[in-house]
Amino acid sequence: MPDPLPETSPDPSDDTVTLYVCTTCRVAGEADEPRAGARLLDALRDAAGDHAGPGLRIEGVECLSVCKRPCTVAVASRGRWTYVYGDLDPADSARTILEGVGLYGQTPDGIVPWKARPQEFRKGVVARIPPLATPDAP
Amino acid sequence: MPDPLPETSPDPSDDTVTLYVCTTCRVAGEADEPRAGARLLDALRDAAGDHAGPGLRIEGVECLSVCKRPCTVAVASRGRWTYVYGDLDPADSARTILEGVGLYGQTPDGIVPWKARPQEFRKGVVARIPPLATPDAP
Repeated sequence: MPDPLPETSPDPSDDTVTLYVCTTCRVAGEADEPRAGARLLDALRDAAGDHAGPGLRIEGVECLSVCKRPCTVAVASRGRWTYVYGDLDPADSARTILEGVGLYGQTPDGIVPWKARPQEFRKGVVARIPPLATPDAP
Repeated sequence: MPDPLPETSPDPSDDTVTLYVCTTCRVAGEADEPRAGARLLDALRDAAGDHAGPGLRIEGVECLSVCKRPCTVAVASRGRWTYVYGDLDPADSARTILEGVGLYGQTPDGIVPWKARPQEFRKGVVARIPPLATPDAP
């Protein structure tokens, strides 16, 4: 008799959390280049070297269309809710973002209890979107 | 020799477009129940009977976290960008939303050319999020 199927996916890539960082975001009154969003991306990549697990993918994106609330990121993962956050400081928020993303990755559905969320995520939430139903789902 | 794999997925469910409608949205000064978002969901389902194709799924959601810009919807599809829109009228926007979603479904990536987008989608965009990379993608 074959072994029963495991309850969790054997493919770790299914559980990957993607952190999208808008590299187009700029902060009023600041020099144009490098833009605040690009600086936040660099800060996140630097900080991730110390703090991020192997299941995190950090990706720069040209515009998340949240131009009035720089800097902006989105957190997404297959089967979990997607969250978009704005009003993030390009210099000081990298570790906080990675902590929040770490909590997200520990949930089955992407919903971190309100009290456990970093203050920046509570105040900066721009939108959230449910996970897409799988083709076999009702 | 086996037939070559088709270039497009043979599973039409992969191409389904999901329209999420926030049913929690309410408009200032209006009666609490039914909420504006719930009324928009009803209007969309009514209008979809006439205008929507078989590849559209309309789903009510409890809160898309865009509470300051009611009414709010999100458009998502596997392999396409996700868009979130706000400032939508619960009574008058249903057909416009369905037209915009129809254009979205005709694109390979979800990006409708700016000039082709309904005015409500141009002004009401809240955020956009890239499609998740497939596990096999680089």
